[in-house]
Amino acid sequence: MSRSRTGLAEEAMAGSRLSLARLLTQVENDTPEGRSALDWLFPHAGRAHLIGVTGSPGTGKSSLVNRIAQAYRNPGGELTPRTVGVVAIDPTSPFSGGALLGDRVRMRDLAGDPGVFIRSMASRGALGGLARQTAGAVQVLDAVGFDVILIETVGAGQSEVDIARLAHTTLVVEAPGLGDEIQAIKAGILEIADILVINKADHPGVANTERALRSMLEMGYSRRRSRRSKEQPDLEDPISAEWLPPLLKTVATEGTGTGELVQAIDRHLVYLKSHGELQRRQYERLLNELDVLVQSTLVSRWHSGLQEELYDEVVAQMCDRKISPYQAMEELIKAT
Amino acid sequence: MSRSRTGLAEEAMAGSRLSLARLLTQVENDTPEGRSALDWLFPHAGRAHLIGVTGSPGTGKSSLVNRIAQAYRNPGGELTPRTVGVVAIDPTSPFSGGALLGDRVRMRDLAGDPGVFIRSMASRGALGGLARQTAGAVQVLDAVGFDVILIETVGAGQSEVDIARLAHTTLVVEAPGLGDEIQAIKAGILEIADILVINKADHPGVANTERALRSMLEMGYSRRRSRRSKEQPDLEDPISAEWLPPLLKTVATEGTGTGELVQAIDRHLVYLKSHGELQRRQYERLLNELDVLVQSTLVSRWHSGLQEELYDEVVAQMCDRKISPYQAMEELIKAT
Repeated sequence: MSRSRTGLAEEAMAGSRLSLARLLTQVENDTPEGRSALDWLFPHAGRAHLIGVTGSPGTGKSSLVNRIAQAYRNPGGELTPRTVGVVAIDPTSPFSGGALLGDRVRMRDLAGDPGVFIRSMASRGALGGLARQTAGAVQVLDAVGFDVILIETVGAGQSEVDIARLAHTTLVVEAPGLGDEIQAIKAGILEIADILVINKADHPGVANTERALRSMLEMGYSRRRSRRSKEQPDLEDPISAEWLPPLLKTVATEGTGTGELVQAIDRHLVYLKSHGELQRRQYERLLNELDVLVQSTLVSRWHSGLQEELYDEVVAQMCDRKISPYQAMEELIKAT
Repeated sequence: MSRSRTGLAEEAMAGSRLSLARLLTQVENDTPEGRSALDWLFPHAGRAHLIGVTGSPGTGKSSLVNRIAQAYRNPGGELTPRTVGVVAIDPTSPFSGGALLGDRVRMRDLAGDPGVFIRSMASRGALGGLARQTAGAVQVLDAVGFDVILIETVGAGQSEVDIARLAHTTLVVEAPGLGDEIQAIKAGILEIADILVINKADHPGVANTERALRSMLEMGYSRRRSRRSKEQPDLEDPISAEWLPPLLKTVATEGTGTGELVQAIDRHLVYLKSHGELQRRQYERLLNELDVLVQSTLVSRWHSGLQEELYDEVVAQMCDRKISPYQAMEELIKAT
């Protein structure tokens, strides 16, 4: 590998924030330099604790991310501060630049701290591109030595779920008063939650939100319990080895409850390590990354071997409804 | 093609609702029978007007779909009723079974009418699977002769946008009081709107919602205008040939404004036909379908040619962080 291709990566490893920022741009743009750097950095990654924070706009998750970062930087007592990287993929986040003035002011608490690095990602991109870019950015921050990486996403569609799956620990953030119907649709998001947070817990309606979420959690618990006792009927307490997502209340703007939240995050990390789950999640993540890479490579290789005239002819037949898309695919695949 | 493989399709074409329902199940499950039927039906499809209806939960779009269907069934005056298929992919929709009692009651208005066929789709599926299943179901309903097909989706993630792209005419439904931040994130959804609807227009806050949406629309108009006048500076009115998405207000539960909405939908269809847009959208849709089919076929073909031992070995090296996912992909692709 040429020196020039890994120069930025080596400088970033040595602590240069400017090189780190430039490297992240290369990775986001998927340049050959960026890809070489990812290969070169890969053996150094895999040590950070990756924490996903997902939730609808309006839940105040950016303030929460801010508080969590501060708590890791100033743990109090004898504890060693941990360094924090933030990857923000939320168009309404102050980190990625879509937010209100109040949020921007709060963000200043993190600015100027060399133990914190914040990177925002464009929220619009090619299908699957954002997930790959995010994985790349996280890997870079991991390899250059950040202890904790917070990945902030909007909990809406499949791509956000994919991004949340990057994380070892996923926080799903809710807030009172966003409507019961909206809560209902989040059933899918709840399934990925390791920790549930009701932020803005000083707002009216918090009791309703808590009740709704608790009943969803209970359903999840009992489903798991009956499944486990069928699988392992000889165990006295079949669920003792399982993580039951706790529900925590916070007021991020005032820092209320955020200490307990960070403790819960740390407990989850201990759980993951002691049950082999951390490794399992890493493997799953890497396998998924490999799948995506194989898929995009197969398609682009196929494209480059395709005769343009044949493609045009088959497409014309399909557009005239003489052959179906499935039959058109068979024609094209047969020819390459 | 064997008789048995097209039997359901022929019976559905002849008007059997039971065969149609069974055929849709085959298509959803992507069975060989379903695939043969899609090939066989393909030449008969391409005649229906496909209308996408997308919006957040809580906007009342299911009631709106119901009203639109009723309007096509009972157009009044000398007009010929049109037959209507509904494909619902919204977990909170009464059509797909996630809704409140009130909605279920309203739904009865459509039950028993042989000119209406409602199909709900599971909202959870393999990545890209839902879009393909939906496209298949829409093609079947189109081929067996429904004049209008309403595709109801939750406007949240990329997969919903993909599904909305199936449609010739896309309605984006908003409602007052869902929060400014939520509106902001919908900027991407607005871009796919051919018609914007503020439903629940009798609710408080409608003026705010209308103002916010109008200002977003204006921005869109002026961006287009300046782009068009650069591209075609010799035209006196460069945007006259363009569709400017209208903003309509409805109260679907009472039927207010739904007549005007259906007129706007019909105007859009006329616009599409007179500007060659209908054909352009059909082509785009078919090309996209072909792309997805090629991709999944390439991947499954590659998988079947892969040596399991090699795969395991490469994956083990990757999980030990000796080689990166990109390098692992190169190893695997090289070997096949």
